[in-house]
Amino acid sequence: MIKTSILGASGYAGGELLRILLGHTKVKIQETTSRQFANQPVSLIHPNLRKKTDLIFSHPENLKKCDLLFVALPNGESMKYMSKLKTIAKKIIDLGADYRFRDPVVFESWYAQKHTDSQFLSKFVYGIAELHREQIKRTSYIACAGCEATVSILALYPLVKYHLIEEKVIIDAKMSSSQAGLKPSLSSHHPERAGVVRSYLPTGHRHTAEIIQELSPFNNSIGVAISATALDMVRGLLVTIHTVPKKGITEKDIWKAYRNEYQNEPFIRIVKERQGIYRYPEPKILQGTNFCDIGFEMDKITNRLVVIAAIDNLVKGTAGQAIQAMNLMFGFPETMGLEFTGLHPI
Amino acid sequence: MIKTSILGASGYAGGELLRILLGHTKVKIQETTSRQFANQPVSLIHPNLRKKTDLIFSHPENLKKCDLLFVALPNGESMKYMSKLKTIAKKIIDLGADYRFRDPVVFESWYAQKHTDSQFLSKFVYGIAELHREQIKRTSYIACAGCEATVSILALYPLVKYHLIEEKVIIDAKMSSSQAGLKPSLSSHHPERAGVVRSYLPTGHRHTAEIIQELSPFNNSIGVAISATALDMVRGLLVTIHTVPKKGITEKDIWKAYRNEYQNEPFIRIVKERQGIYRYPEPKILQGTNFCDIGFEMDKITNRLVVIAAIDNLVKGTAGQAIQAMNLMFGFPETMGLEFTGLHPI
Amino acid sequence: MIKTSILGASGYAGGELLRILLGHTKVKIQETTSRQFANQPVSLIHPNLRKKTDLIFSHPENLKKCDLLFVALPNGESMKYMSKLKTIAKKIIDLGADYRFRDPVVFESWYAQKHTDSQFLSKFVYGIAELHREQIKRTSYIACAGCEATVSILALYPLVKYHLIEEKVIIDAKMSSSQAGLKPSLSSHHPERAGVVRSYLPTGHRHTAEIIQELSPFNNSIGVAISATALDMVRGLLVTIHTVPKKGITEKDIWKAYRNEYQNEPFIRIVKERQGIYRYPEPKILQGTNFCDIGFEMDKITNRLVVIAAIDNLVKGTAGQAIQAMNLMFGFPETMGLEFTGLHPI
Amino acid sequence: MIKTSILGASGYAGGELLRILLGHTKVKIQETTSRQFANQPVSLIHPNLRKKTDLIFSHPENLKKCDLLFVALPNGESMKYMSKLKTIAKKIIDLGADYRFRDPVVFESWYAQKHTDSQFLSKFVYGIAELHREQIKRTSYIACAGCEATVSILALYPLVKYHLIEEKVIIDAKMSSSQAGLKPSLSSHHPERAGVVRSYLPTGHRHTAEIIQELSPFNNSIGVAISATALDMVRGLLVTIHTVPKKGITEKDIWKAYRNEYQNEPFIRIVKERQGIYRYPEPKILQGTNFCDIGFEMDKITNRLVVIAAIDNLVKGTAGQAIQAMNLMFGFPETMGLEFTGLHPI
Repeated sequence: MIKTSILGASGYAGGELLRILLGHTKVKIQETTSRQFANQPVSLIHPNLRKKTDLIFSHPENLKKCDLLFVALPNGESMKYMSKLKTIAKKIIDLGADYRFRDPVVFESWYAQKHTDSQFLSKFVYGIAELHREQIKRTSYIACAGCEATVSILALYPLVKYHLIEEKVIIDAKMSSSQAGLKPSLSSHHPERAGVVRSYLPTGHRHTAEIIQELSPFNNSIGVAISATALDMVRGLLVTIHTVPKKGITEKDIWKAYRNEYQNEPFIRIVKERQGIYRYPEPKILQGTNFCDIGFEMDKITNRLVVIAAIDNLVKGTAGQAIQAMNLMFGFPETMGLEFTGLHPI
Repeated sequence: MIKTSILGASGYAGGELLRILLGHTKVKIQETTSRQFANQPVSLIHPNLRKKTDLIFSHPENLKKCDLLFVALPNGESMKYMSKLKTIAKKIIDLGADYRFRDPVVFESWYAQKHTDSQFLSKFVYGIAELHREQIKRTSYIACAGCEATVSILALYPLVKYHLIEEKVIIDAKMSSSQAGLKPSLSSHHPERAGVVRSYLPTGHRHTAEIIQELSPFNNSIGVAISATALDMVRGLLVTIHTVPKKGITEKDIWKAYRNEYQNEPFIRIVKERQGIYRYPEPKILQGTNFCDIGFEMDKITNRLVVIAAIDNLVKGTAGQAIQAMNLMFGFPETMGLEFTGLHPI
Repeated sequence: MIKTSILGASGYAGGELLRILLGHTKVKIQETTSRQFANQPVSLIHPNLRKKTDLIFSHPENLKKCDLLFVALPNGESMKYMSKLKTIAKKIIDLGADYRFRDPVVFESWYAQKHTDSQFLSKFVYGIAELHREQIKRTSYIACAGCEATVSILALYPLVKYHLIEEKVIIDAKMSSSQAGLKPSLSSHHPERAGVVRSYLPTGHRHTAEIIQELSPFNNSIGVAISATALDMVRGLLVTIHTVPKKGITEKDIWKAYRNEYQNEPFIRIVKERQGIYRYPEPKILQGTNFCDIGFEMDKITNRLVVIAAIDNLVKGTAGQAIQAMNLMFGFPETMGLEFTGLHPI
Repeated sequence: MIKTSILGASGYAGGELLRILLGHTKVKIQETTSRQFANQPVSLIHPNLRKKTDLIFSHPENLKKCDLLFVALPNGESMKYMSKLKTIAKKIIDLGADYRFRDPVVFESWYAQKHTDSQFLSKFVYGIAELHREQIKRTSYIACAGCEATVSILALYPLVKYHLIEEKVIIDAKMSSSQAGLKPSLSSHHPERAGVVRSYLPTGHRHTAEIIQELSPFNNSIGVAISATALDMVRGLLVTIHTVPKKGITEKDIWKAYRNEYQNEPFIRIVKERQGIYRYPEPKILQGTNFCDIGFEMDKITNRLVVIAAIDNLVKGTAGQAIQAMNLMFGFPETMGLEFTGLHPI
């Protein structure tokens, strides 16, 4: 039984951490902080947790020592406090962008701010277990991946690793509203946001930098471009990745690459059915689960390989990924607390 | 050709007035005011009007004289300015609640504020043409009904007038997000608001007062109770009205009452089909139209008469009602500008 | 470890049984039958179960003996096979309507067909644990309640038992599409069904009979009327129940009645908050859970008590209820397999 | 006043033709045929037309002579009847795929059936007015474009014509449910279809052939690949088109190309705003309109030009396009009957 606290527990990532950790038999939640909602019950903001917990949000100032601290703050915040936080917790899992990059210049160019704790970047391991399992087991500091980066990296890295695709990759990402967080604005106002198919980032998505960082060890000149469209969906993320297979590559080669990398992965499923209506990955049946579903279709006429992948952005894309990493860091079974099957119909 | 201006044109009611008036051949729009968006193009906030108008929001301070002024301000605002507005426009149509009540005490008890212009209340005619057509033709001042009041009054008044139902009436209202206006909040934030079936006003809905005011001339002791539930819908409003038929009343009597009152009404349809899937009123096919669809079902076993009625809250419930009244005030054909058929499928 | 089979496992109730049972540590699923999909993998129809099970649908003809049989057939089907099924399984939980009524005449009048196994009705216990826990522990045969009946009975019975409300009750039910089952039709066709607020049963809902049966022991002359409206929602069910409190009854009395009956119930939560946006029960955060959330509001002006209750129709309304009963029948912890918290935001 | 009939009027395209034509002052609708619904009122299937028309579906066998016949049959049907239809109507507008291709081999390879009336293909003009206005004015036979082809061609042709992009183009299409027509199936069943982000055609979309046909006069070696994803949307279609700008091409060049081609087009709007939340085309505000909104964003870092375009698939993509062509064929004002502005919020 380890003692964990969550810094920034009123946001959607924090709520999802709470939901999963409350069902995790090896973890005791010590504190859940929120500046805005301090002294209010956690279930005021996360109504799904009624009768599951009596936790009260505490003020972040007086965090007590714990075994593991989850940091779920807005981008640019965790680096301000990290040196202090290290004195509070032996292990830290950061869900924000601050420690995802090995090179502070990359952070600074994509996030348009100075990195104020760059000497500490090298201590952090990027949180995707499928790529960095052994490092995660040995580290004390994790920087979880962005949700869009997570699903794209998982879909692409076997293809890059085995040199199956050309180096220009286009990711057409279909996004949900929860990823933008808890703060209301006109763009999140229901009459404006409902029913949209909104090109909110045709180019320039920040997660591009993470994807390139993680894929470039396998191919130094990989080129990634993202176009992101927001849909009328609260949870879930699907990417349609447009790639060009290298000459002579067959469907078998693709299967083999995915099998080699993923056949023992508990949270990855290759979804490519000949019949039924769920023939490719779909985010709606992944809600609440830690799965990443991956499918693909080759087209010889146009010489394309279209890769489709889906996750729940708040689970595999955020809190579930963090807890999968936690399980590895503490030697718990990797799937512990993450067994939820997903619902159908939904 | 009359000159009209819209005070408060950036809200949803204002935008809907604009949409309809831009297609109205007898009306020229002179000014559209918005404090918040002054000097911005109207199509920034109402993107459906692109290429339909080059209007710019103006500041409300310097309104020019016009033939007709639409006032689309938050409740409690128009009474502050009314004495000045009367010097600007000969005719005024107010879409807020300030002048809906003949008795200022009723306003004050439901809206929890002093009425500061109560001596002017008697000049206003309540804007539902089906009840007050002749008065509307002769007045210079209209107070449009609340959306929930509009649909409920239209569904109920023939039944009350012909003494067909007992005096206790329960209105179960299914509401959409646009009625709450343009201002974002946590309750309108997409991740929180999408997918809801939210009992936001189980009791105490303000429109109760309007419904009682309009029905009591037909039955002094009518009792009305509303329970309102918000759905994942941007436009539209459906009421399920639970009533008890008086002894001996048959389905024929109900048909007859509706026919007597509504057979020549251009915007009311009795919807009660024996087959098909749209057997009763449904808001989705009314979007953009000025129709009020009304249906009913009697149940002898439980001695009930369930009345179902639907409108587009922004059209028949707000802007369309206002323009229908304008047409009457100026002697234009009553349906002018309000001919939109509605879409199916949608 | 008990051996269970599911007769009719390709429907939505069957799929939900499967989902829950696959996570239940005391149960082994032996067979899952489907006439239509025999020999196909279960995950073809229930794609959320990929990687969770390799089960194949089997043909219902050759069911093997098991400890517990779940019967999830269309209404009117299970009574045809029951005498045979009793030889296959010692214990049976039927999810259809055939054995819900103590009086076959009630079944026959509401379901418009002859009951062909009426002598066996008395062996079945109605499956709501909150009302029949001790009987369920001792019986071998359970008839699970209808979803709409479940939520209405749970909301009402403490009020009826303690004589807090007058005997006429109106239930305004907001329904989802999953309850109509797996069979496509024009009324379930997405372009026609999306976005609806459809009065599909203004009167005459069959679950009326169950509600009366279960409440009448507490008040012989209880009168129940249901109006059902279908919404654009796949899972979930909310009832707004319009009642009249007896003279002198206060909010405290209501609280007390619910507390008396439900304070130790693991799956019932009284939801009535002074702040926040989830102040009353809402179905969206109950998806996948076995909770029934109940709230209420009294209005002295109109002398009303509005009771609001919500469930997931496929869990507490169907499969979860069945498994809760199973846990009781076999002496497992009552909440086993039913611990899912629900998601937020969703 | 011309006399028109609609062959296949019960489908969604037929219903939309009806809706628009009922508001068109130069057209009288003579017959509306439906084999399945013969002798039923049109408003049974198209409930938005209640009180707008008393038309009854007639049987297709006995079509009377008319000035213009709209043919809205499933693909492969109109070629069976065309020689007979030519004797009934002087002018014909076909909304299906049968006469879209100049080369019957193309039809046969994409639609997997023999073309049985190929000698008549050359008589038909492809129905997109923006490309073929003068020919449309002079022809008697129109083959309307597919909805996905329409929006893609309109977005791309100025770029191809002015040689602004490289020849490989990827179209990521976001589709709605109405385009699949009126016929229910498991894939259109609401519990399965609601909430989806479903890759139903990762490759191999038939409209590819139309797009290539229409663009190849401007660039013989244009390569087009479509990936289509179905969303939880009834009406509307958005394409995100991933292209590579030719060397040296600037944003100004793109603007200029669109302006040259479209500045006088009544139904095309270039949507590319610096502020507001509707900065790029969005299908929801186009519902019911004949607009095609087009926007774009260049990214120098990745050397991309992302083009975004949206339509209402049933209007500009089908019935509105047909009526725009009709207006040209008969010398009516081109926008007649197609003035609907679109709704906001919706």
